[in-house]
Amino acid sequence: MSIHESARIGQDVELGEYVVVEEGVVIGNQVTIGHHCVIKAGTQIGDRTVIGDLTILGKKPGANRKMARKPAKDLPALFIEADVRIGSQVTVYAGSVIGSGVLIADHASIREQIVIGQDTILGRNVMVEPNTIIGSETTIQTSSYITADTVIEDQVFIGPCCSMSNDKYMASGKGHHRGPRIRRGARIGNNASLLPIEIGSQAVVGAGAVVTKDVVPGATVVGNPARQR
Amino acid sequence: MSIHESARIGQDVELGEYVVVEEGVVIGNQVTIGHHCVIKAGTQIGDRTVIGDLTILGKKPGANRKMARKPAKDLPALFIEADVRIGSQVTVYAGSVIGSGVLIADHASIREQIVIGQDTILGRNVMVEPNTIIGSETTIQTSSYITADTVIEDQVFIGPCCSMSNDKYMASGKGHHRGPRIRRGARIGNNASLLPIEIGSQAVVGAGAVVTKDVVPGATVVGNPARQR
Amino acid sequence: MSIHESARIGQDVELGEYVVVEEGVVIGNQVTIGHHCVIKAGTQIGDRTVIGDLTILGKKPGANRKMARKPAKDLPALFIEADVRIGSQVTVYAGSVIGSGVLIADHASIREQIVIGQDTILGRNVMVEPNTIIGSETTIQTSSYITADTVIEDQVFIGPCCSMSNDKYMASGKGHHRGPRIRRGARIGNNASLLPIEIGSQAVVGAGAVVTKDVVPGATVVGNPARQR
Repeated sequence: MSIHESARIGQDVELGEYVVVEEGVVIGNQVTIGHHCVIKAGTQIGDRTVIGDLTILGKKPGANRKMARKPAKDLPALFIEADVRIGSQVTVYAGSVIGSGVLIADHASIREQIVIGQDTILGRNVMVEPNTIIGSETTIQTSSYITADTVIEDQVFIGPCCSMSNDKYMASGKGHHRGPRIRRGARIGNNASLLPIEIGSQAVVGAGAVVTKDVVPGATVVGNPARQR
Repeated sequence: MSIHESARIGQDVELGEYVVVEEGVVIGNQVTIGHHCVIKAGTQIGDRTVIGDLTILGKKPGANRKMARKPAKDLPALFIEADVRIGSQVTVYAGSVIGSGVLIADHASIREQIVIGQDTILGRNVMVEPNTIIGSETTIQTSSYITADTVIEDQVFIGPCCSMSNDKYMASGKGHHRGPRIRRGARIGNNASLLPIEIGSQAVVGAGAVVTKDVVPGATVVGNPARQR
Repeated sequence: MSIHESARIGQDVELGEYVVVEEGVVIGNQVTIGHHCVIKAGTQIGDRTVIGDLTILGKKPGANRKMARKPAKDLPALFIEADVRIGSQVTVYAGSVIGSGVLIADHASIREQIVIGQDTILGRNVMVEPNTIIGSETTIQTSSYITADTVIEDQVFIGPCCSMSNDKYMASGKGHHRGPRIRRGARIGNNASLLPIEIGSQAVVGAGAVVTKDVVPGATVVGNPARQR
């Protein structure tokens, strides 16, 4: 293990082999951290949280010289509340807040400036882009992609392999970026594609649908382009 | 290296740097294990198997308090037969059986209670959910998603980025979960979406098709929704 | 750290904890390499390049006995030019060339015999298959899949979760493998599926489109199958 001398580690904490804990990290009581994890500078981890193996918490974003949208600087630390479960081979960035009871499964990657409400489930290999809000008791299944600047409310269900865009002009330089709005209780089928539209409360989007327009609350849409059924 | 004293390691085994081998692991002869791998308690690895770097074998499933379907407890150990090749950055769970000659490529993740037949290929970033059977000499290409409770027979070809659902009511609480049945020799094009239906033997599903009904043996279907051509 | 005595390491290089550097590696000046990285034999890394944590550079391909297309043998080393930024949990193979200023984001996997032009961005979880050319100043967004034998020219934009095929007969044994040709300045929407066709210069493919025929320069296509709009 390599534990920086400034790190504060609670009682009854289990640390795996070859763990790296950088400066200023704060780890609560009864936390479990798997083998080969990297806890980056300043990260805060709440009580009873469980982290798998080979996971990185608190990464800072980078950029290359071509990137149009530079990542935020001077981000606050990653803040993980109590009773969170994070899988193996995960990357979570600095500047995000992970609510109590959240599950983030293996191979997922969560960028900066994201807030995730309590008891929400993010499946394996889910990718979440920056500046996004995800509510409580929401489920996002395996391999789905949440674009930047998205709002997903409470008790939403997003099936596996869904995709979203926050730029209907596709990098043409027109318009600003805005992700989909997915309202409370909406359900999205597997491999659906969402443009920067709104999915109303309790609406249902069929598997494989390509949603190019707003969906009114309670409606069901299917097809490419998606139409009300 | 950190090798538990109860682990049994065969002859001519190569272990990389910083490998962690937990209690009760059994490793056959002429096995190669890459750097930073984690071999969890009880895992059994057959002769001549090759494991890449930064891979986890024998992980036990977890859950949060919201998850409707709790993972199985008291799983048997992960059992990997001889001559298997597993890539780098892979996670394979306890309670699964990986047949002789199987290839599991980098960044893939294989859950518990899965049986994979011999000489099958799972591409990079493939995600397989629990309680699923995959036959022999089947190919599942890069980034495809296999849902829970699925049956895939022998000599099936699944192209890249395919998606499946095991719940046609999308978490509404109606009905039970059942994944697709994909019969012998069927071929599925890239980015197809399958609902919980049956794809008959030797049938062909076109790229991007959204398959909402059973496909009879030998038929070809394309489109959204998929129709026979 | 485990640094092979034959490795040549430049000035002002930062190496993280538990890094493994194999034989014959050459690392330039002012390079940063994160914790738990594995730099495989012979890899060459240019000046000022930054590598995240838990990343593998220079992996050699493997195969199982069933695989129809065996990977190339006797590959040259991985060559990474100056000022490249590679994320965390990434795998890049031997026999590829990564141009100056390229960004490869977390969880991506880049196979062998690939050339990537300068200042190109590959998003998180992007998978690139062997024998592919990607131009300069091109962007490939999160979770997109680039098949083998593909040519992507300069200043192309590929949205998230796109998919490609290089085999229109799907492993039937007919025909040879050839990936899509995507010409300069083309733009592809999220979750589009491309068969082995050509997308003309400055053409636009809508989100979720399934492109089964060539697209002429400057045209816009949408739908399944994609038709000109």
